[in-house]
Amino acid sequence: MAIYKTPVAEFRFLLDEVLDYTNNIASLKEFADYDLETIVTMIAESGKFCANELLPINAPNDAEGLKYDPVAKTVTTPKGLKECYKKFRDQGLVGIIQPTEFGGGGAPHLFGALLGELQVSTNTAFSMLPGLSQGAMNALVTYGSDELKKTYMPNLVSGEWSGTMCLTEPQCGTDLGLCSTKAEACGDHWKLTGTKIWISFGEHDCTSNIVHLVLARLPDAPEGIKGISLFLVPKFLPSGERNGVFCGGLEHKMGIHASPTCVINFEGAEGWLVGTPHKGMQAMFVMMNAARLEVGIQGLGMSEVAYQNALSFAKERRQSRSLDRKKQDPNAPADVILVHPDVRRMLLNVRASTEGMRALAYWTGLQIDLSHHHPDEAARADAADMVALFTPIVKSYLTERGFENVSEALQVLGGSGYTRDWGLEQMLRDTRISMIYEGTNHIQALDLVGRKLPVDNGRMARSFGAKVQAFIEENASNEAMKEFIAPLTKTAEMLGEMSMELVMKAMSDPEEAGARASNYLNLFALTAIAWLWARMAKASLGKDDAFHKTKLKTARYFFSNVLPETRTLVAFLKAGKTNMMAFDADEF
Amino acid sequence: MAIYKTPVAEFRFLLDEVLDYTNNIASLKEFADYDLETIVTMIAESGKFCANELLPINAPNDAEGLKYDPVAKTVTTPKGLKECYKKFRDQGLVGIIQPTEFGGGGAPHLFGALLGELQVSTNTAFSMLPGLSQGAMNALVTYGSDELKKTYMPNLVSGEWSGTMCLTEPQCGTDLGLCSTKAEACGDHWKLTGTKIWISFGEHDCTSNIVHLVLARLPDAPEGIKGISLFLVPKFLPSGERNGVFCGGLEHKMGIHASPTCVINFEGAEGWLVGTPHKGMQAMFVMMNAARLEVGIQGLGMSEVAYQNALSFAKERRQSRSLDRKKQDPNAPADVILVHPDVRRMLLNVRASTEGMRALAYWTGLQIDLSHHHPDEAARADAADMVALFTPIVKSYLTERGFENVSEALQVLGGSGYTRDWGLEQMLRDTRISMIYEGTNHIQALDLVGRKLPVDNGRMARSFGAKVQAFIEENASNEAMKEFIAPLTKTAEMLGEMSMELVMKAMSDPEEAGARASNYLNLFALTAIAWLWARMAKASLGKDDAFHKTKLKTARYFFSNVLPETRTLVAFLKAGKTNMMAFDADEF
Repeated sequence: MAIYKTPVAEFRFLLDEVLDYTNNIASLKEFADYDLETIVTMIAESGKFCANELLPINAPNDAEGLKYDPVAKTVTTPKGLKECYKKFRDQGLVGIIQPTEFGGGGAPHLFGALLGELQVSTNTAFSMLPGLSQGAMNALVTYGSDELKKTYMPNLVSGEWSGTMCLTEPQCGTDLGLCSTKAEACGDHWKLTGTKIWISFGEHDCTSNIVHLVLARLPDAPEGIKGISLFLVPKFLPSGERNGVFCGGLEHKMGIHASPTCVINFEGAEGWLVGTPHKGMQAMFVMMNAARLEVGIQGLGMSEVAYQNALSFAKERRQSRSLDRKKQDPNAPADVILVHPDVRRMLLNVRASTEGMRALAYWTGLQIDLSHHHPDEAARADAADMVALFTPIVKSYLTERGFENVSEALQVLGGSGYTRDWGLEQMLRDTRISMIYEGTNHIQALDLVGRKLPVDNGRMARSFGAKVQAFIEENASNEAMKEFIAPLTKTAEMLGEMSMELVMKAMSDPEEAGARASNYLNLFALTAIAWLWARMAKASLGKDDAFHKTKLKTARYFFSNVLPETRTLVAFLKAGKTNMMAFDADEF
Repeated sequence: MAIYKTPVAEFRFLLDEVLDYTNNIASLKEFADYDLETIVTMIAESGKFCANELLPINAPNDAEGLKYDPVAKTVTTPKGLKECYKKFRDQGLVGIIQPTEFGGGGAPHLFGALLGELQVSTNTAFSMLPGLSQGAMNALVTYGSDELKKTYMPNLVSGEWSGTMCLTEPQCGTDLGLCSTKAEACGDHWKLTGTKIWISFGEHDCTSNIVHLVLARLPDAPEGIKGISLFLVPKFLPSGERNGVFCGGLEHKMGIHASPTCVINFEGAEGWLVGTPHKGMQAMFVMMNAARLEVGIQGLGMSEVAYQNALSFAKERRQSRSLDRKKQDPNAPADVILVHPDVRRMLLNVRASTEGMRALAYWTGLQIDLSHHHPDEAARADAADMVALFTPIVKSYLTERGFENVSEALQVLGGSGYTRDWGLEQMLRDTRISMIYEGTNHIQALDLVGRKLPVDNGRMARSFGAKVQAFIEENASNEAMKEFIAPLTKTAEMLGEMSMELVMKAMSDPEEAGARASNYLNLFALTAIAWLWARMAKASLGKDDAFHKTKLKTARYFFSNVLPETRTLVAFLKAGKTNMMAFDADEF
């Protein structure tokens, strides 16, 4: 069975020494109850819960899978999942970051991100149930009427009910403008008709009600994306009556076998408008952006648990002799494989990128809290810019690298990685979807390049660049930081150059933006992670304990053996669209 | 259901215009019956068979899986598999490249490689059954006594019986020196006792007998790798009696669910020595090297079929509008996704690398035939060098890139790629093992760096370098070839430089070789593929038909959007071992 140990020391280091939690969050009056020690204790406790309750059911749930009853149109989830969800709910974890006025814990968003990592590492399929409820609650809190909030929030916050996001239809996934689900007037509310597909936890038996948030068109809706509205459609109406929304079947997927991916049919189902008519995409993005960060954290959590399991194997498995005679174990016929350089290479590729991704995810999580609660308006606005800028980056880069990391960790185990015994093969199957759902990774890249960069002539990217530049200047005369500042400076320059070239080219030819976006996003991500690794190195310099000494070594590995991926990305960016657009359709 | 169309035009182009099949193979008297047209016809016919018979059972077999009966110790394969194997066998395809004296077809090895690709593209799990028989036959032909050949070859060649390779034990996979299966004298032959694991098609119901080739130790064997002998152990003895070799169970794997991966127990099973006592590794490598090339071709075949399916999806699926107004379809609410630059980027990444890998695999296949049959001794020796040099490269690079390619093709399909409907998720699960079995990819890299490079002070690499250099010089004044020759020259120089540095560093510190080997192998592979792409470009220049015009465009895409991966590899190689060996074991 897979193992998992909560990386509490990593969390504490990031919060306290890198992200300066106390000055940034705990000083905000909203979070007075959540000082550093409280948060670290909560992480440690939640981590124990996840390791003791969620992890043991991860593999059995994958094997047991889901049962769909086509007559009753119900979905039976694996036995362990239901029980665990109940325990998770009873601990108050579903609504921990939701407002206290609805019974939530009022904890910082940053804690939500930490809790998300723990859930993903121990049971990704499970994590989607409370995860989707977060999105629904966020949309309701931001755009719902007081009446809707009063009716639905308390039970969502407590976890008695769960939420879904119903966006995709057979003819529209990426392109939501093609959405054809219809809403017709029905007194003070609406009746919805249409079919949604790929609805995670669209039907299940873990909660007594399911609250669907659904994109559909009002009768007078303009065509395309500007005619989409958001509706709340409960499985059971406030009267207790069964509403006309039914599960038409389940998808058969590569992984996350305990997470039902449903066809959901709306058969004149009663629904209530959330927010303004035809402005549904706005409200949808509130759900979506939270979900995108959660999905990014899937890549992170999967990398972490894959690393831990590969490491544990590498410390036990004996094959062949160390290439360095001094390291050979005279008491055994072979050495543990951790002595072999390539095994270290694979493990450190995973580890150095994982720790960098964690820093990026939590720095972004911090920006969410600052954007809502910082007393200074300009600081709130800048934090909101950073959230907007980094949401697509976190979603795309962390899931892409996460998948590569799980595959690399699996490779450490050789044949054992391909069989069920160690859990790695399930991790690889489970994590592959994260590059696709909540907007494919290229959609994230288009969001970065097409929606975020252009705002106010590059305001967001300039603000980020200024932060990096300030750090470089601050440390310019610090001899001990030179080995980190030099490559960071070079990378930041390359990003600046590539940003300029992209903007120039794309102005006259939007296809250039499309052709470059994915590689550009990765270059941006690596630059941000290099900046955070340099900050982590600085926080570790001159400290003589094992944790900080190892952190410094990992920082060096990142700069020498991960960051140079930028070189290839720059070459691809310089190539631009020419050779990929030269083909006629029939030449493919 | 997945689709597949045999790439006959690709095969013909490579054989005729790039590899000069007629001068190289068809002129050898052994292959007089196999002129270019015969071979192309055989490919087309075999391709039809694979597409019509193997492909339709691929997904159902994955779903049906295998049944193990713990009492009878038998394995039941999916229904379709057995029927298909019978048809495949009846066409004479099992022994098509085996010597005519045992009833084989006497076809060139190159044809075996082509046939391998077709099988993998349509049904990887199936391909392993005849594939493993090839390895067993190769070992028997090279090292078996006349008596053993007479008894076993005809039924193996006809496919009435199948073969296996029994190497791995619970305590030894990579490190076969730890092998503990014992052989004790029993008249003129031996009795074997021990347990082997991960034995592909170790037990099944497709053939009337199974011929195991087994590594074990004679009573007087020295310790380690120098005390291993190879034995032939049939499931049924020549007398018809059941031998003491039984299947103890099946592994549960991520993919290739129709290929039984068995625990095989030898319980005093009667066996016959193949080759010289204690020299089993030599004979094992005859099987293994053939198997390594076959596995490399798995990466190629999977890339090809994944590309075809992703392309078919991209030509049908409509989402969003082309970024270029001129390309927008006025008759539909959205454009086919093939118009989007990033979809092209993903497709062309797969395609340009796949066509390059195919050229490398078949060039290597050609060298096998030349090494056996060229009339000139020096040419035979050089071809044998090329086979030795490129076997680990083909195995490792093609499987690593193959896995990336299937994942990239899956991404083109978005959510549909993650569900069972289009077959991509099965391809990803099926192909992941290829990076592990027949020696993990890093073992291939160590073979390249530790066993192949040092021979005669780098004779093999020098000979390859001379071929590349000759091509560069030949085309130095060809203006039209400049765009290919310039980057090829630069890449070849980088490889030369990195080879020199690796050899110098590794002389004083073998860990440097281990730390660099995997990245070095990839740099070597990309250089060889760049050379072959330049040759393919040359064969296409000035030809005005659609095939050659597209080939030239793909060549350009390879040089601008695939080859620059070398830049990052060079940076990693320059980093060497320092930062990966800096960690103490307890710092991981």
